[in-house]
Amino acid sequence: MSQRVMVVEQILNANDQLAAENRLKLDANGVFAINILASPGAGKTSVILRTIEALSERLSLGVVEGDTAPVTIDADKVSARGVPAVQINTGGNCHLDAVMFQMALPQFDLAQLDLLIVENVGNLICPANFRLGTHKNVLIASVPEGDDKPYKYPGIYRGVEALIINKIDLLPYVTFDMDYFRRGVEMLNPGLVTFPLSCRTGEGLEAWVEWLAAATQAKSITRVAGKD
Amino acid sequence: MSQRVMVVEQILNANDQLAAENRLKLDANGVFAINILASPGAGKTSVILRTIEALSERLSLGVVEGDTAPVTIDADKVSARGVPAVQINTGGNCHLDAVMFQMALPQFDLAQLDLLIVENVGNLICPANFRLGTHKNVLIASVPEGDDKPYKYPGIYRGVEALIINKIDLLPYVTFDMDYFRRGVEMLNPGLVTFPLSCRTGEGLEAWVEWLAAATQAKSITRVAGKD
Repeated sequence: MSQRVMVVEQILNANDQLAAENRLKLDANGVFAINILASPGAGKTSVILRTIEALSERLSLGVVEGDTAPVTIDADKVSARGVPAVQINTGGNCHLDAVMFQMALPQFDLAQLDLLIVENVGNLICPANFRLGTHKNVLIASVPEGDDKPYKYPGIYRGVEALIINKIDLLPYVTFDMDYFRRGVEMLNPGLVTFPLSCRTGEGLEAWVEWLAAATQAKSITRVAGKD
Repeated sequence: MSQRVMVVEQILNANDQLAAENRLKLDANGVFAINILASPGAGKTSVILRTIEALSERLSLGVVEGDTAPVTIDADKVSARGVPAVQINTGGNCHLDAVMFQMALPQFDLAQLDLLIVENVGNLICPANFRLGTHKNVLIASVPEGDDKPYKYPGIYRGVEALIINKIDLLPYVTFDMDYFRRGVEMLNPGLVTFPLSCRTGEGLEAWVEWLAAATQAKSITRVAGKD
């Protein structure tokens, strides 16, 4: 039993080692990268497409699409908007890891990139344990999933630096106690920055987009300063 | 590389072996068991509560609740309706397996039970690979998750014997092409029995409940015949 735990730790350490290398490569090129986590159907791709709409004229963007199946549905949507997209097929695996991300990075012209968005596999459990080397983990919850998700999937709520609450346009049609939800989040991750929004109506998107633009800009200024 | 694959196969075989033992124990007691799979927030617990409402006077029910965290939110809801519920905490693991199910079985008076409903961990990937020993796998999709899920999570759509499409009351408020969704399902699992329904309004529930009651009854008749 203790031997089995040891093996798991070694895998995580190898992954963390590669994640650190990925981070160095991103930093060297002044690229700000976020890792988007969510349940299937919470709206990861919709948020990414809305973000592209809002930011593609101000920033140079790239997207990594993680999927368990060899389908390019999401990558095609991103490419159709003129943004470079790289598809990672995990071969049935339930999460991206630092090795997969490392293999995707050379597909981009990193020196030209400001912001790299990674769409992880739709899953609230496994991706929490595998860092990629991105700068921030962003979780997307969605109203129709229900208000009890922080209580049921605490691991992923603990490990993120921003939270989007998507599909707020559906609040009138479902049972979702926002206070109960927020209490759960606050318990796990005090002070977490949160963006309630609707990709469908556009409500609330600006706050998210401006937060992301500012974080990307801060990174870019660091790069310029570093080069001086 | 080939060594790593071998280890995975051995784990699956050990799980299948235990699943077969679980099935024998269920069969010996004439218990019909289903394994409910879904994404987080698709409505597993709501379907179970509606099923209890509809069937608890006709059948003797039991529920196993799988959760990654030590919370008894769902088990408490089931117990409150007078149905025995056993909570399995997977300790962060992303799926139930045959060992956990085996540990839960002695908590029930199997000789008195007609139908045992297992609520698996909310996840569209990992639970597909671990049989428990139940008689049927039932997948719950939900309208707000989007119509592309069969294309993105083919493994789980291939491995089930019934499909519930929950939250059809939200069809007017979201983009969901039912034909596109059904084509994806048909490609992966031809002829799969499907129940579009809404736990919120009750629409479509009767077809699901009667299908489940008939399957449970058929099992019970087999038991009586076997005992004769």
